[in-house]
Amino acid sequence: MFIRDVPADEALAAWLGALEGRRLDAVELPLADALGRVTAAPVWALRSSPAYDAAAMDGIAVRAADTLGATETSPRKLSRHAVVDTGDALPDGFDAVVMREQLHWEEGVPEVRAAAAPWQHVRTIGEDVSATELLLPEGHRLRPVDLAAAAAAGHTGLSVRRAPRVLVIPTGDELRPLGGAAPTAGELLDTNSLMLAAQAHEAGCEAEVAPILPDDPERIATAVREGSARADLVIVIAGSSAGRDDYTAAVVQSAGTLLVHGVAVKPGHPVVLGVVDTTPVLGAPGYPVSAALTFELFALPLLAALEGTAPAARPRARARLARRLASSLGMDDWVRVRLGRVGGGLVATPLPRGAGVLTSLVRADGLLIVPAALEGHDAGEEVEVRLLRDLDAIERTIVAIGSHDPVLDLAASLLRARDPAQTLVSGPVGSLGGLVALRDGLCHVAGCHLLDPESGEYTLPWIRRVLPGREVAVVRLVHREQGLIVAPGNPTGIAGLDDLTRIRYVNRQRGAGTRVLLDHELGRRGIEPGAVDGYVREEPTHLAVAAAVAAGRADAGLGVMAAARAFGLDFIPVAREPFDLVMAPGEPAVAPLLELLDDAEFKGQVEALGGYSVAETGRRVA
Amino acid sequence: MFIRDVPADEALAAWLGALEGRRLDAVELPLADALGRVTAAPVWALRSSPAYDAAAMDGIAVRAADTLGATETSPRKLSRHAVVDTGDALPDGFDAVVMREQLHWEEGVPEVRAAAAPWQHVRTIGEDVSATELLLPEGHRLRPVDLAAAAAAGHTGLSVRRAPRVLVIPTGDELRPLGGAAPTAGELLDTNSLMLAAQAHEAGCEAEVAPILPDDPERIATAVREGSARADLVIVIAGSSAGRDDYTAAVVQSAGTLLVHGVAVKPGHPVVLGVVDTTPVLGAPGYPVSAALTFELFALPLLAALEGTAPAARPRARARLARRLASSLGMDDWVRVRLGRVGGGLVATPLPRGAGVLTSLVRADGLLIVPAALEGHDAGEEVEVRLLRDLDAIERTIVAIGSHDPVLDLAASLLRARDPAQTLVSGPVGSLGGLVALRDGLCHVAGCHLLDPESGEYTLPWIRRVLPGREVAVVRLVHREQGLIVAPGNPTGIAGLDDLTRIRYVNRQRGAGTRVLLDHELGRRGIEPGAVDGYVREEPTHLAVAAAVAAGRADAGLGVMAAARAFGLDFIPVAREPFDLVMAPGEPAVAPLLELLDDAEFKGQVEALGGYSVAETGRRVA
Repeated sequence: MFIRDVPADEALAAWLGALEGRRLDAVELPLADALGRVTAAPVWALRSSPAYDAAAMDGIAVRAADTLGATETSPRKLSRHAVVDTGDALPDGFDAVVMREQLHWEEGVPEVRAAAAPWQHVRTIGEDVSATELLLPEGHRLRPVDLAAAAAAGHTGLSVRRAPRVLVIPTGDELRPLGGAAPTAGELLDTNSLMLAAQAHEAGCEAEVAPILPDDPERIATAVREGSARADLVIVIAGSSAGRDDYTAAVVQSAGTLLVHGVAVKPGHPVVLGVVDTTPVLGAPGYPVSAALTFELFALPLLAALEGTAPAARPRARARLARRLASSLGMDDWVRVRLGRVGGGLVATPLPRGAGVLTSLVRADGLLIVPAALEGHDAGEEVEVRLLRDLDAIERTIVAIGSHDPVLDLAASLLRARDPAQTLVSGPVGSLGGLVALRDGLCHVAGCHLLDPESGEYTLPWIRRVLPGREVAVVRLVHREQGLIVAPGNPTGIAGLDDLTRIRYVNRQRGAGTRVLLDHELGRRGIEPGAVDGYVREEPTHLAVAAAVAAGRADAGLGVMAAARAFGLDFIPVAREPFDLVMAPGEPAVAPLLELLDDAEFKGQVEALGGYSVAETGRRVA
Repeated sequence: MFIRDVPADEALAAWLGALEGRRLDAVELPLADALGRVTAAPVWALRSSPAYDAAAMDGIAVRAADTLGATETSPRKLSRHAVVDTGDALPDGFDAVVMREQLHWEEGVPEVRAAAAPWQHVRTIGEDVSATELLLPEGHRLRPVDLAAAAAAGHTGLSVRRAPRVLVIPTGDELRPLGGAAPTAGELLDTNSLMLAAQAHEAGCEAEVAPILPDDPERIATAVREGSARADLVIVIAGSSAGRDDYTAAVVQSAGTLLVHGVAVKPGHPVVLGVVDTTPVLGAPGYPVSAALTFELFALPLLAALEGTAPAARPRARARLARRLASSLGMDDWVRVRLGRVGGGLVATPLPRGAGVLTSLVRADGLLIVPAALEGHDAGEEVEVRLLRDLDAIERTIVAIGSHDPVLDLAASLLRARDPAQTLVSGPVGSLGGLVALRDGLCHVAGCHLLDPESGEYTLPWIRRVLPGREVAVVRLVHREQGLIVAPGNPTGIAGLDDLTRIRYVNRQRGAGTRVLLDHELGRRGIEPGAVDGYVREEPTHLAVAAAVAAGRADAGLGVMAAARAFGLDFIPVAREPFDLVMAPGEPAVAPLLELLDDAEFKGQVEALGGYSVAETGRRVA
């Protein structure tokens, strides 16, 4: 009987338990090949290091007793001495070294002006390590210093666990190998095998990717059985759920022992854990974020256990949550977050949570695990985050939250190219969301292009509303064209916003500057939102709007020219608007970005995007 | 003109400056080969992912409008639908998915009991990434998720910097290659090349070790010149100081440009930085700790700069210092520390600071950098430590400070073999030092065998003195024989302690239980310490005492039989004494150790060491 929908630690314990303490074979490797491998036995020092009393300085070997009483005013001449360099064996009969810099030579005879303590500047036998001392325990992953110390202690090779062998078996009728034609609708590129094999490599394993199998339980079973004979861990990718074509659980049950089906973790819930012919088998979900986290959660500890060591743990840090985070009870929720140091503390901003949004993991600085027993966290609450990126790098990050414009991507790219330690991240939450984030101390800079319909003025009235009494600096990024993104050739013959009542529209979310602009323009024209087909369909970015048009899912959407160009779409200008950066005055983190705004190369590249004016770029407008 | 004895950051800046922004060539690598490489250009999405609107659940595709008004009490039959699995393209004309679990089928027609929101359970085009979006910046080291995301965004390969090539040139007349005969006095094993090459491998470089060269400036110069033509970084190991046979600086000056000679860092001061034929050359000191730290301090940032990225930074943590730490003004002092979580906080115990004590780096959990401007830190002061080991692993560490006995090594080894996540570290500071450390909350357990001469009782009177009013548990580790360790065959004919006045003795430090025992026994015999030749020569451990005797530096020293055996020496029993473990009662960290004391295998291995009785092992004596 297997267990289902259990907490992750319970699932892992059941799987590790099935190993019954079994470890990979020990092999004797020369030291030069043993980096990253795990010791299969304690390493005791075979000899002492240094193996003899040695000079620790360049100078002369002396008898300490001969120097007794020597002072600046009554120096001692030492006829009995031997010139030594660092590392030389201390000649017989001597018990101290006087440094070269402290000697005065007269006719080939050295003179000392201070008494030498016995054994001063001498590295005595075994100073580093004494024969028979425990140098390294069993189960220790070997680092460069360990190899050198083992060599110094008389070892030329060490008994280590051989590298684990991981076999990845991709399955699915819809799966297509990388490198072939672009996938058509309903086809899926097999990006998971590449990722899982790379994760295995990173963990020091040998990894093999099998050819893609169709959803055929017999063929999958054969592959798992054959694979379990030569691999230490078999990963079957996709088919771990309970759908029509999900065979992994049944295959494991028929070919060996099914231990776990379903784990109370999100994303990653449909996990299969089992054993075939004593070889552990992991059925990983096909959603890429789930697959990656499943490897981290189950494969890494299992591989470490086979090597007889503990898995590497990610460093942790505490951060304040940028916004409220809801989480389902009963499941550990692995939330990807961006981190930035704002106002002295770390701030964590949750990223999109879909299991299919691999870029959320690419962009994540950390993982926040909301335990199964919690319904979530409040905004501002302090949470513990497992770091996916150096804290040092995170601290050098400019956090831009608010409206997004492709110019910010360009700025991020140029900043990084000039200083590899500099990062600019931007969280697209709309202009209004950006001002709120700035108010709450959750970002360094907010991208903003919010029209105030009453005054016709941009951004400043909103700042007065959202950040009353707060001193802020407003710096112009660009002027840009907003317009209707339409299919190439404008097949529906759209001339302007008046046509929105007769076509399928794709909208932006509330709080987005582009949405405010649309609502304002519709109001001026007396068009009711309800009269626009697709008004309720919201997308979070310009690019997502363009993608919807490119896919034929909508006939038009309001956005910037760069987004239209990106998808080879046509663009009908509607309005020219300023896009501004709002920040605390003198915020040091933003300095590199402000510097870039004065840069001719940057401005040239912005203009090349099309639809932008850089005439006021970098000007402080408030 | 070169600069000398400058702060490390100034030295590094001068060296990096000489690169003039030069980076390694960009090469196009297939994704599967690009793990760990650094992007040579920004990575923009070539296509959107998903590339089509896709079902996000198993179920049926519907038109949301058809489901309007459906409730539990008035379900809707849907003749217009299509069965879809997760990942299937949403068929034309449909705009939502209803999950399988929420359907009721009647005669092949599904029925829904709730209205579907438009686009529910649909992954829309570009949900993960939209064409033309910035996926990864230039200068980004590729991780498994990055490769998968790049593949999903239409890439099959990426433009990355090629792996840096590091050439290590070992020099020194005294140097012997690994794997040959054991080094004789004055000879030195070339452990540094192994270590530096492994450090380079760990940093993702190709590494080559050249044959050992003698101290011959012409041959070294030729090797550096030839090496600079094929390597991106040449490391000349040893010869970077200013001694008689130290040629690295002169070689770099003659073959290219010498930039820096000497850096205000300890250990690691004699560093040479220069450039030969545009290739950076690093002259590293020969002391192994210096060599390892020099690589970390200079080679790693340089290699990262050549790759166009920032070097990986070690995670940091804050810890209280276990004891006062003096440091020389004018030099950054890189102190190796052990870490443990004691009483809720991290405690850092400095390890031996000699540049030749590589085991101090092997055993270190972290590096504490005392800045040049400070003379040190006080005990209990909070300091920042760069972590060399997982904080998770550190938290699972039993910190034993006090007297050391080989039995503790054995215990550490067995604990680890049984639970790879369990570590026991022991800091040998003598019995008294251990009680003080326990008092100050700096360890979990103190090894102690302190005779109270007045009462003849062991340990308990000292606990009352050092820890008055504190409740402690005392658990017996072993009874052991203390005796005189003498050369094989006892050539000086030592019968007992009375003979110490006529031979060369090697002593233990003040506060060591063995020292207290000696002083007590000398007093009983009326022997003045001044009458014992070598009384002032102090060694910190039993093994170090045995090593001194083995080397013929002393005729006898007091210690345990296991130490004598380790060096094949003879042993003349003097006293039998209890060795106890002192701890806070119920300290949870110590539980695995106490469990081990009841273990038959452990006891058997202790008895096999010789000189121990386990009759009372594990007994709580107070």
